[in-house]
Amino acid sequence: MSRKTIVVVGLGRFGSSVALHLQRMGHEVLGIDQNQDRVDHFAAELTHVVACDSTDEDALRALGLRNFDVGVVAIGNDVEASILTTVLLKEQGVPLVVAKAMSELHGRTLEKVGADRVFYPERDMGARVAHSLLTGSEIDYIELSPEYTIMEMEAPPQLEGLTLREANLRARFGISVLALKSGEHINAAPLATDQIKPGDHLVLLGSKEGVKQLERMLQQQ
Amino acid sequence: MSRKTIVVVGLGRFGSSVALHLQRMGHEVLGIDQNQDRVDHFAAELTHVVACDSTDEDALRALGLRNFDVGVVAIGNDVEASILTTVLLKEQGVPLVVAKAMSELHGRTLEKVGADRVFYPERDMGARVAHSLLTGSEIDYIELSPEYTIMEMEAPPQLEGLTLREANLRARFGISVLALKSGEHINAAPLATDQIKPGDHLVLLGSKEGVKQLERMLQQQ
Amino acid sequence: MSRKTIVVVGLGRFGSSVALHLQRMGHEVLGIDQNQDRVDHFAAELTHVVACDSTDEDALRALGLRNFDVGVVAIGNDVEASILTTVLLKEQGVPLVVAKAMSELHGRTLEKVGADRVFYPERDMGARVAHSLLTGSEIDYIELSPEYTIMEMEAPPQLEGLTLREANLRARFGISVLALKSGEHINAAPLATDQIKPGDHLVLLGSKEGVKQLERMLQQQ
Amino acid sequence: MSRKTIVVVGLGRFGSSVALHLQRMGHEVLGIDQNQDRVDHFAAELTHVVACDSTDEDALRALGLRNFDVGVVAIGNDVEASILTTVLLKEQGVPLVVAKAMSELHGRTLEKVGADRVFYPERDMGARVAHSLLTGSEIDYIELSPEYTIMEMEAPPQLEGLTLREANLRARFGISVLALKSGEHINAAPLATDQIKPGDHLVLLGSKEGVKQLERMLQQQ
Amino acid sequence: MSRKTIVVVGLGRFGSSVALHLQRMGHEVLGIDQNQDRVDHFAAELTHVVACDSTDEDALRALGLRNFDVGVVAIGNDVEASILTTVLLKEQGVPLVVAKAMSELHGRTLEKVGADRVFYPERDMGARVAHSLLTGSEIDYIELSPEYTIMEMEAPPQLEGLTLREANLRARFGISVLALKSGEHINAAPLATDQIKPGDHLVLLGSKEGVKQLERMLQQQ
Amino acid sequence: MSRKTIVVVGLGRFGSSVALHLQRMGHEVLGIDQNQDRVDHFAAELTHVVACDSTDEDALRALGLRNFDVGVVAIGNDVEASILTTVLLKEQGVPLVVAKAMSELHGRTLEKVGADRVFYPERDMGARVAHSLLTGSEIDYIELSPEYTIMEMEAPPQLEGLTLREANLRARFGISVLALKSGEHINAAPLATDQIKPGDHLVLLGSKEGVKQLERMLQQQ
Amino acid sequence: MSRKTIVVVGLGRFGSSVALHLQRMGHEVLGIDQNQDRVDHFAAELTHVVACDSTDEDALRALGLRNFDVGVVAIGNDVEASILTTVLLKEQGVPLVVAKAMSELHGRTLEKVGADRVFYPERDMGARVAHSLLTGSEIDYIELSPEYTIMEMEAPPQLEGLTLREANLRARFGISVLALKSGEHINAAPLATDQIKPGDHLVLLGSKEGVKQLERMLQQQ
Amino acid sequence: MSRKTIVVVGLGRFGSSVALHLQRMGHEVLGIDQNQDRVDHFAAELTHVVACDSTDEDALRALGLRNFDVGVVAIGNDVEASILTTVLLKEQGVPLVVAKAMSELHGRTLEKVGADRVFYPERDMGARVAHSLLTGSEIDYIELSPEYTIMEMEAPPQLEGLTLREANLRARFGISVLALKSGEHINAAPLATDQIKPGDHLVLLGSKEGVKQLERMLQQQ
Repeated sequence: MSRKTIVVVGLGRFGSSVALHLQRMGHEVLGIDQNQDRVDHFAAELTHVVACDSTDEDALRALGLRNFDVGVVAIGNDVEASILTTVLLKEQGVPLVVAKAMSELHGRTLEKVGADRVFYPERDMGARVAHSLLTGSEIDYIELSPEYTIMEMEAPPQLEGLTLREANLRARFGISVLALKSGEHINAAPLATDQIKPGDHLVLLGSKEGVKQLERMLQQQ
Repeated sequence: MSRKTIVVVGLGRFGSSVALHLQRMGHEVLGIDQNQDRVDHFAAELTHVVACDSTDEDALRALGLRNFDVGVVAIGNDVEASILTTVLLKEQGVPLVVAKAMSELHGRTLEKVGADRVFYPERDMGARVAHSLLTGSEIDYIELSPEYTIMEMEAPPQLEGLTLREANLRARFGISVLALKSGEHINAAPLATDQIKPGDHLVLLGSKEGVKQLERMLQQQ
Repeated sequence: MSRKTIVVVGLGRFGSSVALHLQRMGHEVLGIDQNQDRVDHFAAELTHVVACDSTDEDALRALGLRNFDVGVVAIGNDVEASILTTVLLKEQGVPLVVAKAMSELHGRTLEKVGADRVFYPERDMGARVAHSLLTGSEIDYIELSPEYTIMEMEAPPQLEGLTLREANLRARFGISVLALKSGEHINAAPLATDQIKPGDHLVLLGSKEGVKQLERMLQQQ
Repeated sequence: MSRKTIVVVGLGRFGSSVALHLQRMGHEVLGIDQNQDRVDHFAAELTHVVACDSTDEDALRALGLRNFDVGVVAIGNDVEASILTTVLLKEQGVPLVVAKAMSELHGRTLEKVGADRVFYPERDMGARVAHSLLTGSEIDYIELSPEYTIMEMEAPPQLEGLTLREANLRARFGISVLALKSGEHINAAPLATDQIKPGDHLVLLGSKEGVKQLERMLQQQ
Repeated sequence: MSRKTIVVVGLGRFGSSVALHLQRMGHEVLGIDQNQDRVDHFAAELTHVVACDSTDEDALRALGLRNFDVGVVAIGNDVEASILTTVLLKEQGVPLVVAKAMSELHGRTLEKVGADRVFYPERDMGARVAHSLLTGSEIDYIELSPEYTIMEMEAPPQLEGLTLREANLRARFGISVLALKSGEHINAAPLATDQIKPGDHLVLLGSKEGVKQLERMLQQQ
Repeated sequence: MSRKTIVVVGLGRFGSSVALHLQRMGHEVLGIDQNQDRVDHFAAELTHVVACDSTDEDALRALGLRNFDVGVVAIGNDVEASILTTVLLKEQGVPLVVAKAMSELHGRTLEKVGADRVFYPERDMGARVAHSLLTGSEIDYIELSPEYTIMEMEAPPQLEGLTLREANLRARFGISVLALKSGEHINAAPLATDQIKPGDHLVLLGSKEGVKQLERMLQQQ
Repeated sequence: MSRKTIVVVGLGRFGSSVALHLQRMGHEVLGIDQNQDRVDHFAAELTHVVACDSTDEDALRALGLRNFDVGVVAIGNDVEASILTTVLLKEQGVPLVVAKAMSELHGRTLEKVGADRVFYPERDMGARVAHSLLTGSEIDYIELSPEYTIMEMEAPPQLEGLTLREANLRARFGISVLALKSGEHINAAPLATDQIKPGDHLVLLGSKEGVKQLERMLQQQ
Repeated sequence: MSRKTIVVVGLGRFGSSVALHLQRMGHEVLGIDQNQDRVDHFAAELTHVVACDSTDEDALRALGLRNFDVGVVAIGNDVEASILTTVLLKEQGVPLVVAKAMSELHGRTLEKVGADRVFYPERDMGARVAHSLLTGSEIDYIELSPEYTIMEMEAPPQLEGLTLREANLRARFGISVLALKSGEHINAAPLATDQIKPGDHLVLLGSKEGVKQLERMLQQQ
């Protein structure tokens, strides 16, 4: 069966968002928080909710966590609880445990005690917001590798009316146009003769250096 | 001149990440926080730092904020300070003010008092983390529209060794393969005869419904 | 029907005074406060009382506030709650929302989020008290315009025994005597021949400049 | 000389408003508060400011308060400090001491220890706000006696176009029209033949019962 | 009937001692304290106990305090509660209200609001302890007037073996020997020929100046 | 030389009263308190003052306490500091150490660790106040033994005009009249023929039982 | 009967360890702590548990402590409670009372009030840990006298393969080998011809000076 | 060179005891604590002391900890600081890091992040105290293995006067007598004919079961 059982520890803004999205994706989610009010708040939306101290070994064992597929340690600001909960989830046999870190040191510690993946939500969102602020693009982009990025960008005035061949982004900046979005319509295999219309959005793949040159060119003109 | 002047209010995990990325992108960044320790911590990395109460109208005016291009209100947990700071930045003439919201109600309020854009970093990162948890993909994806998504995914075992034509994702799920990543190499214009090798990453564009069907197929086998 | 339904949020000294006066004027008043003790204290005097967090959207909606004619946001010292409550009352359709402000910045923010009128009770009472302190008058006066005032004043010794004609306030200070109060008796259409008796109160209408000259004259003699 | 020396103890919202108005009226004001920040904030606007504990007998004596004409005890929420400060001001010989009360019991106590007048700013402003809410008038009115009131009111539609004789408020409600305000123009001795124009403001004198009947009539139609 | 009804407000160390002694003297005592634990602690030893806020006018009235003969305000450290409670006890008609003061200013205020007598237990006990420390006497003495004192003192070695005539305290220091205590036996009418035995206690009446001279003489030898 | 050196630890209401009285009696007093403000407050009135933690062994030793004649441990509410300070004063060789106790258990513990005398100021003042409340006497009395008391009492109306022989207190209640006070005049050797005048004060010596009977008689008539 | 009844006051890390070991050694243990959660935690493992304030004389008496053989005062950080509890246990007749001290002064005070033995667990463990850190030995050793120690030590490389006679520790350092441990096997009467094998543990008895010389020799080579 | 450099983090009761013992053993000790007062207190006794936050990576690096031989993490109650400090000491290259644990879970976590040894001082001292309480022995013993113990015990009355052969502990309980202590004299190779004198101490090696039987025998007689 493809339905996973997932325990999310910590139902703050980040943790509750993880839990609710997983629940909506069809998985079985157990939400845990120390705070009874928060637990009550999500009782109707998650498969199970429990108010307990996730560093209490006996309490966790009573929940049968060894049968869960995934553990998400989304504890807000309590570094001690975050680390100890990660230790316990791994010790009780949860195969995949991911955890949120508040700092680099916290993150390295989580990995040492067994976390399979570590997230830095505020730091990563900061990067996204910074990136999107000045390009007019939305904050969505994909970091394919330390060097290459896919990003969505509203067509700049300098490119309006040009065909992709005329825009010639590949030659000038090493940037490929993966797709063109015109309103609701998405063209996932754009041709060199397709024209960039005002308001179109471009999905671009390029090196970060190339993207930087493109942004600089756009701003200078 | 394309170099922007940006004031970032609140140098917590999210705000400092925004500020540092903008600084590295070549912009002039003024970091403000009530906490003198935080301000000292970033003094060497940002153009300017100031420790002050951002809801103190006289203090803000003395900083000459009317000449800034962008204001980022990244105040952590103090809803009152977040709203009042947004009001002041707009009143003092900052053309673009973006702000972080802790809840929907907070976000709507920020818009009513003039915020040009509102972010929900924890909520959005929760969505990304949830999405990435079970697909093996990294947490990066782009939401092109309410219906269409670009995402990166590690090639599932069922597709290994197939050519893109054989995988036939477009016919079965309406999904386009925009790029293929093999280790360091990125193929931004994949051909139907290109083969999917173990460990490759696929950059896919498709409807959310199609992606969901693909994920279900992959999990059931 | 002329009976209004009014919700008063915040039952501190100011809010409870508003609520009780409206109730006595024959309206239907719902009093809301976070503090259960306060709510209990007013249960017998107001039509309805509820202890709840007025920034909890679901809680407010459950109260059916959309059917109320007027909302009074009289929250004491919590600027955040004051602003968010104002947002919610307007969003739920309360036609007239008035709110108490703690500062100018708070007041401007309330207006931006939709408050129809904003009060500054402490500041305004400060003005009244200052005005009344040195004239011997009660603290009641009406500011007709930035220039003209109606005020009540105990008859100064210099005017005792004079008729209104002899006092001649209109010629000397541009001040009209609207009414004369002798003990319980109120003379709302005083004649030029009416005499000012010791202990009488005068209701005067004049320019602020004129009133100031009158006060100066009275003090110098 | 008519310039008074006044000491205001407590520079919160109410106290600072009293102090600033008195200063602008030309008097010499000494502002006292325990909080150094507040004191600094008003240093430029008041004649003198001092940060000290107003219940410290030696500190008060050192300020030479016995030479002041008036003392205003505007301490916010500290009942003990309010009472003890009032005692000390009277003992040191301040002829007129007025004080702000937080409750009836507090007010009675202030009178017992010598306060010459006691104010209840929040309670009184609550009454004014309640009164103004539903009449469309501004919040200014004068309570002449327990029975009679002077108030300003925007001319209701039912009276527009009528002369004062036709409106006949005296006969119907026992209400006198003291003045008529048309924009900037104020008519302090209106005649029976003067007409009420849309947008005019009426200054009325009447019994509370009469005003209530008038309001009811206006609302029912 | 000579049994009095007494209300003691505040059951700390001082108040509970007052209450228990009065109860043992045969009076009817009502003990009031805000703290439920304290109230429970004395429930078995006092006629009545009630846990309530003694500044809550309605609560006090419900207790029928107007019928009590005496009120003792023994509130520990809360000056506000001490003053307001004294006001209420007098207003409700308790004929004799005594109160404990923490400072001179507090004491003067209590008298202004109606306290019939004011005690300063710590200050007074400090005087007694200081007095007894160096004389070897117990701490008991009676201050007859600003000048004269009655005190008990262990017979100093210099007087042992002497008759009262030989000791001659009246001539040398103006001190009368009121009584002689030998172990359990008390001689309330000592004769000039009675002898002072080692270990006897003398009850002396003299001027403070005389007592001081006596002490000095005893210490110098 | 008869001038003693005394260290008083704890300068609260009780401790400062002890210290000031001893100083005025001509002794050399060192006042110690943890609180710098209190220490400053008494700097001008005591021989020496020091702000330090009296449980810090090195700090105490540095003060040379071994040369002091008397130690007074007057620490307010900190039982731990009271006990440990008493231990240290005795260990450092102070010959006479007296200490204030907050409870019986505290008092017994002080004796076990070496306190030479223990005081219960609040409890003892409670007894005095209770005793004085209903007799009209001042609160001064001397407890000669568990059975016998000396007390001062205003002459009750029933005894006015009688001679001491007629009053016959010795026969009726076993009470001796030690002295008679008429205004400023004190008669320390009253005769059987001396008359009790209205307003006189009697100094009585009697058994507690006798005093109780006297009081009962006085109240019943 | 040799089964003892023991009361352990304070169930923190130290106290609970004492209590659990005594229980496992077959004694009857009553565990007392102020904290209900801790008490509940040990309810299943100790004979009796009670949540109460151990300085409440009545509460202790109700537990019948006079019949207990031993009292252990293991209170964590509250010096006052530690001292007063010790006083009460002795007063109620517990023959053997041992107590944990936080400092030398605290320890001396416990002895003065009657503690039969005083422990300094953190200080003593610090000594053990320091001793074991650099010798490779476990932290177990016995201090026979101020001069002689028994200790366990892993055989150093320099001694491997030697017989005890060849190692000749007695002649070189005055150290006797009391026992040899080879894995599970313990040789309690080692012969001079027994050989030291790699991984063996030696149980040594020697003067501290001799052990120090041995350690120095081992480290230098 | 055999002198080691050791950093001790946390200078509470346990940590300071470790640090002082190591210093006295001739090693170079750096003491670190967040609390400036504690640091000052040990400045004269340790080689170096520093007040800093041991979880501040930059601060630690500036201390050059990579050159230290041993790190002791003796942090009192802050689990987070204990874990993060251990991570940093290992990352910076300290070869041997030992740490104090507050609980089993804490201890396991310390081992996961790289602690070379973990101590539980309170738990271990609890065991020692429990063991020593009822045997009359001191608290020193050595746990050779889970089964075998070396312990010191005062000679019980039942054995006094017997030779070791007569006592026959080996045959009856499997216990060897390793040494005999008579006052200052220690006999490390006792013969079967040596006599046990009153007051002697025996050093015994035996199985725990054997020791238990011996204790039971001693208590029953």
